Amino acid sequence: MYSVKVYVTYKASILDPQGEAVKTALHRLDFTNVESVTQGKYFELMIKKTGKNIDEQVEEMCTELLTNTNMESYTYEIEELTTVEG
Amino acid sequence: MYSVKVYVTYKASILDPQGEAVKTALHRLDFTNVESVTQGKYFELMIKKTGKNIDEQVEEMCTELLTNTNMESYTYEIEELTTVEG
Repeated sequence: MYSVKVYVTYKASILDPQGEAVKTALHRLDFTNVESVTQGKYFELMIKKTGKNIDEQVEEMCTELLTNTNMESYTYEIEELTTVEG
Repeated sequence: MYSVKVYVTYKASILDPQGEAVKTALHRLDFTNVESVTQGKYFELMIKKTGKNIDEQVEEMCTELLTNTNMESYTYEIEELTTVEG
């Protein structure tokens, strides 16, 4: 079994109105030392091990469904969970 | 300057319809080995160093604005960026 975490954010060239809105709200709450905010999507997936390459599978999931590759960029972390027998 | 990453997900007891929808869609794309999907929010913040404790500040930002503590739980990572003097 794999535990996979995917982080999706807007590409730098794309305006992030949600991030701007959060920054403005934080400033109103007196967190005026906040310089910038980016808001994105976060996925946690549990994926059963098969014969297929897990990196390739996660890449395909990201490009086919989890992100809009025109506007968003993504990074991910894959951790293999070792089940304790006994 | 600090680089702060905040990960917000639904509490385990809360139904995650978005995560379920993503799982169903992945299964339709033949990723049938996906066991579970959780979708949440992801924030990247750049925060100027001040006299205040950064952990306390981030905790307050999370509980006051970034999360709905009734339904969501959060984790965060704080990294201090050292500026190289030219």
